[in-house]
Amino acid sequence: MREVERVLAANEAFYTAFAARDVEAMEGLWSQRAPVACIHPGWQPLHGRDSVLASWRDIMSSPTSPPIRCTDPVAHMLGAAAVVICTERFPGAELVATNVFVEEDGAWKLVHHQAGGVARPSGDDEGETLH
Amino acid sequence: MREVERVLAANEAFYTAFAARDVEAMEGLWSQRAPVACIHPGWQPLHGRDSVLASWRDIMSSPTSPPIRCTDPVAHMLGAAAVVICTERFPGAELVATNVFVEEDGAWKLVHHQAGGVARPSGDDEGETLH
Repeated sequence: MREVERVLAANEAFYTAFAARDVEAMEGLWSQRAPVACIHPGWQPLHGRDSVLASWRDIMSSPTSPPIRCTDPVAHMLGAAAVVICTERFPGAELVATNVFVEEDGAWKLVHHQAGGVARPSGDDEGETLH
Repeated sequence: MREVERVLAANEAFYTAFAARDVEAMEGLWSQRAPVACIHPGWQPLHGRDSVLASWRDIMSSPTSPPIRCTDPVAHMLGAAAVVICTERFPGAELVATNVFVEEDGAWKLVHHQAGGVARPSGDDEGETLH
């Protein structure tokens, strides 16, 4: 499998774990050694594996946690790191996300995630924004 | 200067160019060779140096472009790549941003930017979110 396909597979595994509320799988997908951060939509940034994984445990344990599906992933390879940009689809809502990975012990692991809302669904022109 | 300080200086230069509406400086801050992407708040993702820089030219040429200030930057080094997470402060508004850099010809260059709103200003508890 080419590196880009391995990165996209790691990205898909992230959304599979999220949709399945599989805490153990989610913990295994994040880097053990690299610095880790996460910006959930509307949240202040979280830094550090403990804070980030605690946030995912809280989110995935919520009975109102909506189903999520990832579409249109694009991976940009940056040597030993990679950025995946994708759309997160929820019932009635759409977010866009940045997921950053590093290679660790032969596998691509998450080190950063940011998701944010889009003013208009994909296909429309760009929305009005602060910048 | 340590690498982390050089990355933080590149991040600061990005916001200085943005605030000054300095198109030439902005163009020099983005990678020439690595794959480039950008997610402005509320927008669909942009891919490719031409699309990304065209968006910055449009944004910086707007007479309603608000002043911006970057605070609380944290750099996470990932070998030949780096992620900076910071707060973008506008009059009456606050965004959080991810900026990804790669080293190119001895300088740290932007390859990706995502900014999104926060539900509550820094210091408050986390806001209600989709995830």
